[in-house]
Amino acid sequence: MNKEEYKLHEECGVFGVYDRSGETDMASAAHAALYALQHRGQESCGITLNTDGVITGHKGLGLVSEVFPPEVLGGLSSEAKMACGHVRYATSGSRIVENAQPLVVRHCNGTLSICHNGNLTNAPSLRRRLELNGSIFHGSSDTEVIGYLLTQNRLTANSIEDAVSMTMHQIEGAYCLIIMSPTKLIAVRDPHGFRPLCIGKLAGDNGYAFASESCALDAIGAEFVRDVRPGEIVVVDRDGIRYRTEHCNQKKHTMCVFEYIYFARPDSVIEGTVVQDARIRAGKFLAKEHPVEADVVIGVPDSGLAAAVGYSKESGIPYELGFIKNKYIGRTFIQGSQKQRESSVRIKLNVISSVVKDKRVVLVDDSIVRGTTSARIIKLLREAGAKEVHFMISAPPFKHPCYFGTDIPDSDLLVAHDRDVNEICRIIGADSLGYLSIEHVKQLAVKEGLDFCVGCFTGEYPVAEPKEQMFDPYSQPLSLSGKKSI
Amino acid sequence: MNKEEYKLHEECGVFGVYDRSGETDMASAAHAALYALQHRGQESCGITLNTDGVITGHKGLGLVSEVFPPEVLGGLSSEAKMACGHVRYATSGSRIVENAQPLVVRHCNGTLSICHNGNLTNAPSLRRRLELNGSIFHGSSDTEVIGYLLTQNRLTANSIEDAVSMTMHQIEGAYCLIIMSPTKLIAVRDPHGFRPLCIGKLAGDNGYAFASESCALDAIGAEFVRDVRPGEIVVVDRDGIRYRTEHCNQKKHTMCVFEYIYFARPDSVIEGTVVQDARIRAGKFLAKEHPVEADVVIGVPDSGLAAAVGYSKESGIPYELGFIKNKYIGRTFIQGSQKQRESSVRIKLNVISSVVKDKRVVLVDDSIVRGTTSARIIKLLREAGAKEVHFMISAPPFKHPCYFGTDIPDSDLLVAHDRDVNEICRIIGADSLGYLSIEHVKQLAVKEGLDFCVGCFTGEYPVAEPKEQMFDPYSQPLSLSGKKSI
Amino acid sequence: MNKEEYKLHEECGVFGVYDRSGETDMASAAHAALYALQHRGQESCGITLNTDGVITGHKGLGLVSEVFPPEVLGGLSSEAKMACGHVRYATSGSRIVENAQPLVVRHCNGTLSICHNGNLTNAPSLRRRLELNGSIFHGSSDTEVIGYLLTQNRLTANSIEDAVSMTMHQIEGAYCLIIMSPTKLIAVRDPHGFRPLCIGKLAGDNGYAFASESCALDAIGAEFVRDVRPGEIVVVDRDGIRYRTEHCNQKKHTMCVFEYIYFARPDSVIEGTVVQDARIRAGKFLAKEHPVEADVVIGVPDSGLAAAVGYSKESGIPYELGFIKNKYIGRTFIQGSQKQRESSVRIKLNVISSVVKDKRVVLVDDSIVRGTTSARIIKLLREAGAKEVHFMISAPPFKHPCYFGTDIPDSDLLVAHDRDVNEICRIIGADSLGYLSIEHVKQLAVKEGLDFCVGCFTGEYPVAEPKEQMFDPYSQPLSLSGKKSI
Amino acid sequence: MNKEEYKLHEECGVFGVYDRSGETDMASAAHAALYALQHRGQESCGITLNTDGVITGHKGLGLVSEVFPPEVLGGLSSEAKMACGHVRYATSGSRIVENAQPLVVRHCNGTLSICHNGNLTNAPSLRRRLELNGSIFHGSSDTEVIGYLLTQNRLTANSIEDAVSMTMHQIEGAYCLIIMSPTKLIAVRDPHGFRPLCIGKLAGDNGYAFASESCALDAIGAEFVRDVRPGEIVVVDRDGIRYRTEHCNQKKHTMCVFEYIYFARPDSVIEGTVVQDARIRAGKFLAKEHPVEADVVIGVPDSGLAAAVGYSKESGIPYELGFIKNKYIGRTFIQGSQKQRESSVRIKLNVISSVVKDKRVVLVDDSIVRGTTSARIIKLLREAGAKEVHFMISAPPFKHPCYFGTDIPDSDLLVAHDRDVNEICRIIGADSLGYLSIEHVKQLAVKEGLDFCVGCFTGEYPVAEPKEQMFDPYSQPLSLSGKKSI
Repeated sequence: MNKEEYKLHEECGVFGVYDRSGETDMASAAHAALYALQHRGQESCGITLNTDGVITGHKGLGLVSEVFPPEVLGGLSSEAKMACGHVRYATSGSRIVENAQPLVVRHCNGTLSICHNGNLTNAPSLRRRLELNGSIFHGSSDTEVIGYLLTQNRLTANSIEDAVSMTMHQIEGAYCLIIMSPTKLIAVRDPHGFRPLCIGKLAGDNGYAFASESCALDAIGAEFVRDVRPGEIVVVDRDGIRYRTEHCNQKKHTMCVFEYIYFARPDSVIEGTVVQDARIRAGKFLAKEHPVEADVVIGVPDSGLAAAVGYSKESGIPYELGFIKNKYIGRTFIQGSQKQRESSVRIKLNVISSVVKDKRVVLVDDSIVRGTTSARIIKLLREAGAKEVHFMISAPPFKHPCYFGTDIPDSDLLVAHDRDVNEICRIIGADSLGYLSIEHVKQLAVKEGLDFCVGCFTGEYPVAEPKEQMFDPYSQPLSLSGKKSI
Repeated sequence: MNKEEYKLHEECGVFGVYDRSGETDMASAAHAALYALQHRGQESCGITLNTDGVITGHKGLGLVSEVFPPEVLGGLSSEAKMACGHVRYATSGSRIVENAQPLVVRHCNGTLSICHNGNLTNAPSLRRRLELNGSIFHGSSDTEVIGYLLTQNRLTANSIEDAVSMTMHQIEGAYCLIIMSPTKLIAVRDPHGFRPLCIGKLAGDNGYAFASESCALDAIGAEFVRDVRPGEIVVVDRDGIRYRTEHCNQKKHTMCVFEYIYFARPDSVIEGTVVQDARIRAGKFLAKEHPVEADVVIGVPDSGLAAAVGYSKESGIPYELGFIKNKYIGRTFIQGSQKQRESSVRIKLNVISSVVKDKRVVLVDDSIVRGTTSARIIKLLREAGAKEVHFMISAPPFKHPCYFGTDIPDSDLLVAHDRDVNEICRIIGADSLGYLSIEHVKQLAVKEGLDFCVGCFTGEYPVAEPKEQMFDPYSQPLSLSGKKSI
Repeated sequence: MNKEEYKLHEECGVFGVYDRSGETDMASAAHAALYALQHRGQESCGITLNTDGVITGHKGLGLVSEVFPPEVLGGLSSEAKMACGHVRYATSGSRIVENAQPLVVRHCNGTLSICHNGNLTNAPSLRRRLELNGSIFHGSSDTEVIGYLLTQNRLTANSIEDAVSMTMHQIEGAYCLIIMSPTKLIAVRDPHGFRPLCIGKLAGDNGYAFASESCALDAIGAEFVRDVRPGEIVVVDRDGIRYRTEHCNQKKHTMCVFEYIYFARPDSVIEGTVVQDARIRAGKFLAKEHPVEADVVIGVPDSGLAAAVGYSKESGIPYELGFIKNKYIGRTFIQGSQKQRESSVRIKLNVISSVVKDKRVVLVDDSIVRGTTSARIIKLLREAGAKEVHFMISAPPFKHPCYFGTDIPDSDLLVAHDRDVNEICRIIGADSLGYLSIEHVKQLAVKEGLDFCVGCFTGEYPVAEPKEQMFDPYSQPLSLSGKKSI
Repeated sequence: MNKEEYKLHEECGVFGVYDRSGETDMASAAHAALYALQHRGQESCGITLNTDGVITGHKGLGLVSEVFPPEVLGGLSSEAKMACGHVRYATSGSRIVENAQPLVVRHCNGTLSICHNGNLTNAPSLRRRLELNGSIFHGSSDTEVIGYLLTQNRLTANSIEDAVSMTMHQIEGAYCLIIMSPTKLIAVRDPHGFRPLCIGKLAGDNGYAFASESCALDAIGAEFVRDVRPGEIVVVDRDGIRYRTEHCNQKKHTMCVFEYIYFARPDSVIEGTVVQDARIRAGKFLAKEHPVEADVVIGVPDSGLAAAVGYSKESGIPYELGFIKNKYIGRTFIQGSQKQRESSVRIKLNVISSVVKDKRVVLVDDSIVRGTTSARIIKLLREAGAKEVHFMISAPPFKHPCYFGTDIPDSDLLVAHDRDVNEICRIIGADSLGYLSIEHVKQLAVKEGLDFCVGCFTGEYPVAEPKEQMFDPYSQPLSLSGKKSI
């Protein structure tokens, strides 16, 4: 069951580190952190290093293990005291190296390296305005827009952090940024706090690190300090760490709930809650909302496992390991399999027959997107002898687009877009189907004041929906260009 | 926690398929089966195809995904009606392409393709005898010895299966063989049945397949029929399937118990028992033998998970998901990490802190080899706040070498070799340590007449220990060669 | 004798093609053309395709054969009617994918793809002015500057060709450009005509192609029409071909003479002269200027061969094949050889001993840069038994930098920078040394009105030398950035 | 004009080195030597090293640069005092890694590494006899046969060199062997001396090297001593060098004349003649045999160049550089070009138009195989304006197969097989066609007592033609195997 096939996609993971002592090898640290964040994006990745103000690095299309083979990793600067890293998921149309990050902005005021996780709702209008003023773009990512605004604001600002603050007045939507200037490392989180971003402290009080998730801090042996606050600008330089809060407390904190439900790694701590605990809680809520008579609870690996444990705890129905997932399947296989028959799904995911044979099964997963994968998994269970399959989803039905960095397919591809639960249940072939309610979703976290963006379920968004589509230079139809000058 | 680092190694997985209808693409089938068997060997792999008696194929060092990229897979014969496949684990000294399988034996009586899983105890003396009669060897594997014997016996035998039967009188130890001649596909299991081997039937009654584990049959959509019996020779050709039993029932069936405990995939069915069920049973026995007061049971992923579920079921202590394993770590990373610090273990395995913090933890794993990895995992748990760590091993202590195809390190590297449980417990830093008893090991399977080889625990082997070391041509010291002729 | 080691470097080759019939596969044509132009740049390359106004493509670091393996080439658009291609030589500091071309400029007025060969003398000031107006740069090449100017001029121009014309008023120095807009293919050559650029006609009158050298037209089966005139703008679209000449005849045509002497392929025709003929002419002039008594004339392969033939013709001394060059040496070898001894020069170039043994040898090459390679070759000849070695160079001594696209090392590395001919002769170990005179250089071409830039020999340039150094963002020392904002 | 397309193929190059001082890095030396011998085989290559009697190494399919990237080369033993290397050309059917050399024969009497250049005429019967005695073969090369014979003879011989001598009584045909035992390096040349093999001395009297051609000695800085004599066995060990001559002077020395005409590198010295001198001599003979009125002589690069120089010298018609060959064309391109049009020949080879336009051209090449390539080249010349094309071939017409290691296509594919010169001339479109006569072929070398094998021209061979075809296990039709045992 390959993630690419049936899952939503997070769009990025970001990382930055500043070690004033020079004791940590920055390239190794960034490399380890990107391994820990790889689940947030598998299409491209990159690392930049800051050695006495000179920014160098490497990036490319592929996994961290592909883009950074030993000879490349070994060739990176070993004298750096700052590093940034980025992993990216790219929609198919824009899978070009120009979109890989960190973006490096060369400018006479000093090179900037920018890592971005999120999606700006006003990027199209900002980009158009920049273009009409003579700016050019190499790729299609929002990050270039941010690069322009930062650069232009810096021309008049007193400092790079002032430029960051000015830029935050211009951009709207979801963004976590790691910005590396010749002398500073800056972390920024948008005022709604859509995406996670946290602060860590290096051993020996030698410096600081920022990461999308705390698991990346663990990977480099840094100590988790706290989340960056929504709207906060955190600056690290040789004088230490400073916090700017002028953009804080202006908006409701509406984090993307899918960070808890699916995107983040179970061992990460986000806003005070271990991700796995939120998932177990989701499973418990599901059991309360949708109790069934069954013999066994199993989760779809890997992201349905924790909610299945929660369902089991609440319902008392035994939790079992029902599937084995082939861990040697890579992207090559998927390509190859296009020639292969439908039945090849078993190469990727197999049922442990003794667990489900003649049993009434509660099957737990985190979402249904198109429904085809769910239908296949339920079919596998029935072929293995399951008497009943009750399908429990640890989230409400997807019905609406996301404007904040999650790659949800077009609404008409969403099985839940214009169907009720009974219809979906019939389509995927389950005996019953239960979704988590919006009310319970809002209780997944324990933190005071933390609300969630649930726009993809309700169609109501914390930020105004974008008025215009991004002009997509990759599929620009010729007729759109009315200008004579083309 | 990479398998290479702290685990035992199975040495091989074998596969063969015969489709008289020509409907199945043999190369795709073998490819899918090798993906399913990849856990049995990751160092080299190969596929041979039989097209109207002509044997072609490809093999190399690396994973299936590396040795068979789409362009190679696409270039294999598409008209074949038979195929063999092999995955191999190789000890470091012999990681050469000459040892990759299937071995193809070119001979005027007809080319043979041979796949072998196991280890012959009398290979050194057989090889020496062959060499003294003028035979030459390209690699160091036992399989070349088998190739010679088969070929020499065939010179006088009435059929290739007679040659196989004659060869079985000469070789001793553990072997599962898949032999492809120009017209026949033959599966053989040694009279002790050390390693698993099973028979499957293709859809539409079009032919048969053999595989080390039933998960490979699932991967190609074949129906599991039964295990090959110890000593049995199964022959498939255009006339159908035939069974020769002259070597059956001569020895006690002493299967390697580690197939249940660690090597085989949980979804495979071996001798009537789903592997995962045997592991859950091991966990239950452990709970009976070593009851402790604790708050939570967690398993070391992936092979300790099922036994942890069993321990939980029997003890009533709740089962939790305590670790997250990084699934993007490949071999490249391991290489790279040699420069990195000890702490980098967290890149591969991280603890879910909320599960263990301030808890008394029962930690379940399948074995302790050197002890260093276990010590590191226990340390991770303590750093995450575990109050107590009780370490339960779903097997008895390793104390002795294996002569039947498992790569156990030299005895002096085994932490249990000359230490009692208390000493080991102290070395790895656990609060208590429990091993499964030999008595319970013998109850892991449910099949009548199935006994186990427990030589690595007891030093008592079902077959006489080899009298001489294999002459290792890769580290042949000059002084050993007393002969003038060198 | 690897080119990388001792030779000057051309910086680029450009190509563009427009086939209104759609009969030619544009990707294959661009690919073939880049193979033909590969000698002009081996560090990166790229192809862009225009399919109904949508611009796609691929680029990367490496040779054409490396960046475009069959699977990549096969994946490019097959419906395109226009294509551009570029090969690039990059100085070590800027060997980053951001500098690979074609540059693709995404803009709401229409995407542009830009290929550039040359070097702007006022790029630093243009870039600084753009930066101070808020522009950002991804790489260090002049091409981004051109991209900005074209885009900004197009905002007010009536057409893209008007924008090109406006841009030509702003940029100074050497440039050959191929610009692909959604509907047009435009070729531009700077008013001095520093670098070559020619026009070809596709078979069947289906369209046109542009290329740095005519050998690329041969490679795609196009018919050579003529050179683009200095200052000319040539536009191809569905209405056919148009020529704009407002920038023509404003400057003296001062082509880089090294295009004849070394850079261009011998079979290319530039400004009416077959390149090889110019080289043979150079050899004849050399024989007139520097007659010697000798037994044999040999050329250093490959670029010294034609001049050696010319020397032989004029002098009557027999021409012989004196060297064999190993054609299997790739970049990998060069890397590896750093560990190897000095003597390993013979792996790359070996002397045919019978040709030179006991002979007085005239050795012809096109240039001496540092002198070390020349010294080694002369030593090889002496070791092979040459009695005398008279070294003839088919160009004057290099003494000054080039600002127009040739990568000449820093002056202090040039052996001729501050030495007279006798000193150089002693350093390289020749019996006599002759350089071609400036007067003869000027007679290499036969075309009326064609003059040459000989700045690297004389220090007198046809365009004012750049006033400021390009700000190099890759080695930007921290102290340079005085601004607080960093 | 790619060699693979229209040329004959040499089958191998061999190399061996023994440095008792340990001063030379054996892996680097073998690597350099294989680069120098790469023209003799491009399909697979390998290196073995002997470190205190332990033989290790690496081999694979591909060029030296592909099989030995820096990380592989760097991983080879650095303590070795002996090394062997091999480059191989393989016919398509047998392009498998099992045929790559050096062959390593593992045996209790000591591992042997064997490199072989040539072809045994009695290999089929030897192999069949071995097989009927129970030997098995992994590949299809003669070298395994030699491995068996050496091993079996060594069982009773007093020394490995005695075993070599015994083996020479059994094998017939063409062979140059380099054999490395735990303590000795042995070079052997067949009694007819079909293929070249020479002896070199390391600097500082530290040891010896053997190579197919002297250019490999130059590459490692060794001094050429002399050719190995036909039938000679040369043994190097820590006591120095010894020569065994019991097989010398038994046969006429009939070297393959194509070593001079085409296979060997021009700078190599074989039997006292610099290869290029033999080619120039061939050109001179051609001019005497086939005088024409013409304006210019040009050679097809690279192998026709020297004969063209010779033709020019003898005839007085000026020699010119008429072609440019693209040096960036690799194997990938050839693959890709299968989709491309006929005209793409110009990507690989282009005419320098000014050399041939309105000229009567003498075109010199070393052979015509199928005639298609020759026809294409002549067409290129006519398109470039040549008035007449007189085609001169520096060898007689191929009419018969070679049994001694040259891969000549089946007779019915040879354009000269059953056609006279006029017919061939018409087919290839030349104005006249001249082949070198057998009488002049015999005068190409200057050495007393050196005769040539001219079997491919005359059908008369110095050794009896093989009585039976090699049983080819790769295309073994099923029906051939009458035995029940299959």
